Amino acid sequence: MCPKYEAASDILGKKWTGRLIRVLLGGPKRFKEIKEQIPEMSDKMLTDRMKELEAEGIIKRTVYPEMPVRIEYELTLKGKELQPVIETIQKWGEAWM
Amino acid sequence: MCPKYEAASDILGKKWTGRLIRVLLGGPKRFKEIKEQIPEMSDKMLTDRMKELEAEGIIKRTVYPEMPVRIEYELTLKGKELQPVIETIQKWGEAWM
Repeated sequence: MCPKYEAASDILGKKWTGRLIRVLLGGPKRFKEIKEQIPEMSDKMLTDRMKELEAEGIIKRTVYPEMPVRIEYELTLKGKELQPVIETIQKWGEAWM
Repeated sequence: MCPKYEAASDILGKKWTGRLIRVLLGGPKRFKEIKEQIPEMSDKMLTDRMKELEAEGIIKRTVYPEMPVRIEYELTLKGKELQPVIETIQKWGEAWM
């Protein structure tokens, strides 16, 4: 139980992760669309964080073989189920920070 | 809104913080009692984390001028209101980690 809590809070405690997940709770997005919603985040940081979340199975990356190629990022079920977590953190943050 | 989320998740994302808060959700505790419930945590780490949480106004430290002196740690209202956050993180962690 405790290691699972620690593992979950390790992921959620990283800078930008909450915002990134919140943006993707709005539906699948292309890299550029995510950037537009988090303009303060550098390309490198966004790329790194997305790779980590993809490796964790929280984000899914789909390549559409169009011309030019279209790449979309979306939350998996594991990622979507973070919604109540993000919401309670945000509620507490708004009340107390 | 976003800086408040980040500030909150910064605090919650730190190792041991969730466990420490969960232990204190059980009521005021002395240092030794907290240690007993988180034996893997070193004295130094516990002291450091408690000081941080005290500085954040999440934990309150009370010194009772008895003989020998008794020191108790408890959650403030700000700390107690973290309960739903800890619970949703834990639930997600149990389901997915």
